[in-house]
Amino acid sequence: MSTALPAALIAELSALLGAEGWRMDDNALEANAQDNSWRHQRPAAVALPASVEQVQALVRACRVHGVALVARGAGTGTTGAAVPLPGSIVLSFTRMDRIVEIRAGDRCAVVQPGVLNGTLQQALAPHGLFWAPDPSSAEICSVGGNLACNAGGPRAVKYGTSRDNVLGLVAVTGTGEVIRCGGAYTKDSTGYDLTHLLVGSEGTLALIVEATLKLTPLPVSQAGLRVLYRDADAAAAAVSRLMSQPVVPTRLEFMDARSLELLRLNGADVPEAGAMLLVEADGDHDTLPYLLQALASAAEGDGMIELDVAMEGRARDQLWAARKALSPALRTVAPGKINEDVVVPVSRIPELVAGVQALARDYTLTIVTFGHAGNGNLHVNILYHPDDADENARAHAALPKIFELTLSLGGTLSGEHGIGLAKRDFMAQAFSPATLATMRAIKAALDPDGILNPGKVLPLA
Amino acid sequence: MSTALPAALIAELSALLGAEGWRMDDNALEANAQDNSWRHQRPAAVALPASVEQVQALVRACRVHGVALVARGAGTGTTGAAVPLPGSIVLSFTRMDRIVEIRAGDRCAVVQPGVLNGTLQQALAPHGLFWAPDPSSAEICSVGGNLACNAGGPRAVKYGTSRDNVLGLVAVTGTGEVIRCGGAYTKDSTGYDLTHLLVGSEGTLALIVEATLKLTPLPVSQAGLRVLYRDADAAAAAVSRLMSQPVVPTRLEFMDARSLELLRLNGADVPEAGAMLLVEADGDHDTLPYLLQALASAAEGDGMIELDVAMEGRARDQLWAARKALSPALRTVAPGKINEDVVVPVSRIPELVAGVQALARDYTLTIVTFGHAGNGNLHVNILYHPDDADENARAHAALPKIFELTLSLGGTLSGEHGIGLAKRDFMAQAFSPATLATMRAIKAALDPDGILNPGKVLPLA
Repeated sequence: MSTALPAALIAELSALLGAEGWRMDDNALEANAQDNSWRHQRPAAVALPASVEQVQALVRACRVHGVALVARGAGTGTTGAAVPLPGSIVLSFTRMDRIVEIRAGDRCAVVQPGVLNGTLQQALAPHGLFWAPDPSSAEICSVGGNLACNAGGPRAVKYGTSRDNVLGLVAVTGTGEVIRCGGAYTKDSTGYDLTHLLVGSEGTLALIVEATLKLTPLPVSQAGLRVLYRDADAAAAAVSRLMSQPVVPTRLEFMDARSLELLRLNGADVPEAGAMLLVEADGDHDTLPYLLQALASAAEGDGMIELDVAMEGRARDQLWAARKALSPALRTVAPGKINEDVVVPVSRIPELVAGVQALARDYTLTIVTFGHAGNGNLHVNILYHPDDADENARAHAALPKIFELTLSLGGTLSGEHGIGLAKRDFMAQAFSPATLATMRAIKAALDPDGILNPGKVLPLA
Repeated sequence: MSTALPAALIAELSALLGAEGWRMDDNALEANAQDNSWRHQRPAAVALPASVEQVQALVRACRVHGVALVARGAGTGTTGAAVPLPGSIVLSFTRMDRIVEIRAGDRCAVVQPGVLNGTLQQALAPHGLFWAPDPSSAEICSVGGNLACNAGGPRAVKYGTSRDNVLGLVAVTGTGEVIRCGGAYTKDSTGYDLTHLLVGSEGTLALIVEATLKLTPLPVSQAGLRVLYRDADAAAAAVSRLMSQPVVPTRLEFMDARSLELLRLNGADVPEAGAMLLVEADGDHDTLPYLLQALASAAEGDGMIELDVAMEGRARDQLWAARKALSPALRTVAPGKINEDVVVPVSRIPELVAGVQALARDYTLTIVTFGHAGNGNLHVNILYHPDDADENARAHAALPKIFELTLSLGGTLSGEHGIGLAKRDFMAQAFSPATLATMRAIKAALDPDGILNPGKVLPLA
């Protein structure tokens, strides 16, 4: 594909979308040039359709001219999935941001993809409902983006990820056709499950233009435990115990010794320990003490140092503030950070944590591991100074080893960030050639000319 | 396709599979000729592979000779999905019935498709775990069959259907390739979601040869409520209230006035009422009273006649015995039964029930409606005498009207039985031509020669 748009296409799309919907000025190109992976590439133009019909016309025009379309929500993704290709058009869903309907009685909401997760949660709260996905960028990321990369967050251990919380979709395929699957119901054995297929496909199969989201009633109250362990092994054994008893925690977060050191360096009041778990339960005033008791019993065991019951209110806020402070704190140690979100079976967490620390020693790097232990989904953060060429090289050399380790433990590359460009070239290690060929065949079925976000997710053939 | 198998194929497959794995005798053909839809068609042969390699070789041989392969679990399906085509080979998974591994620490089990749901539950119980899908045939249906039609059951309101409870699959596509997706982890944003796509595809896309199932810890105790209402509207309003508060019931079953009449006719001790809900909660001895209280508060409201707290033990067993007695009781009224499993948004249940009763009057039929109200998934049973040509015709004329009604309420054709042959010809009402074309393109991507269960699920083009 050439990097200059055909004049006929520009004329067609500027007439279709108008001044508000068609931008080729520097400001617009620059504002849509990167995501939170810090990759940077200006597109040839930015299209901001306001209706499904405009999305269809846009896709059809791009198909005729062989121009790539890169769908974009709020640009908070971490994998480069929304980063433009040279000569591509960014399709920004900023103007399709309506909450179409909140159906409290059916526990679902119909939304356009551009609505922000945080805006949706605010609109749902008066109905006593919430949408489960809670990535750390929730206030500023879009629901469409959440669906595109199957975003999760700490609450996923109890309530599931984006994929588990969508009931139906309307989408535009690579041929400009509108497809409609699922709806305002929670059980469906009618034909092929296109809904779950599109979630996590990062704009490469079809463009989601409307979603029916599954909602959950807000809990009456919440409370948490802070539990310290001798080492990561002891904490990981506790994670397995916690996950095999009937009280499902709402959040179950793990922090390794380096995470705790970092917190202390930044002035947080966290005792010295080999690892820490934050465990939280949802319930009401009557049941919560019993739920916490069950979780505390499961958390206890060999290697536990201290268990702190931090009930509602200020103590609980402090507990979670410590967890939230962790990601920014990493930047104080080193300006460069490779943050991966690998997943392993819960029983293999000790081996993952130990293996990562062995790699940190081998490559003389600081690697900090914390995250959503109840799902075996840990954030492995390689810290480095980008200007230190040697450290930079070591950091990027260690990354494939972390994926290799994860796969050897029966895990996979990404639990909630997606693949984009960042992990695309590791897909061939995660999947057999036949499985990748099947994914490619599905891509060709929905997007026969390969105009939807080409070069993302699937490795180049 | 001719109805006689090519001699070369017979020679190849009998050598491949041996006497235990290749059957063309009358007994075998007859034993694999029907499912619980009572459609009947003998296959040309029955293949019983014992390994993934044999499944691959079988698919490749059938592809070369253009012979259709119809996958079969235990034959308890109700839609004809497992009923052979003339000249086809049934691929029975009876011999691939091993529980490969129970990974209690990872809350998952790896199984072959032929294992029975009931056998699996027995093996899981000592680990304090269960697999959520609980169709009424649980004791005798296979896990592979459950996955093929996305089976549910009453517990789905809290724990989800088969699709919600599978973490990974190994499958053989229509080209004989093995694909592998997902695994022993509960969060996954790595590539396209083939796992959920294959669930519910009724053996038309690929043959599931191994599944990693998500398990749930067994609750410590359970208890239920029996609630009687003036009419279906009052009961349906209670369903909406029950589903919009934070205590998710484990089961939430609805029975209309005709269901209750039937129960009384059969000697069950059920008071006269317009509708009944059975509501159940999972918990432990400490929390259960509070959970029941929350459910009882939500169940109360305009039109409630009586609320009966039937705690654990005998009272609870009686409550559920009454529900289970319902399906067999239908046979005492009429020997013919068309049992559909439509789904509507929970808030539309009153209109569905009223609309069905209007159709019953219009067509002079007895139609009994009961089922999984928490999911809006109701079993609409049209009762008739097959030998009464006129009643038979009226019953089959009413069926499309029931689907029409369901779709007009924003619902869909099937919540847990699947499509098979029974609902195939209604798919074009449920989906737009573009959506069906996308499903067909996906079918062609995975099974390019159309040898896997052709003519099922998708309407003939």
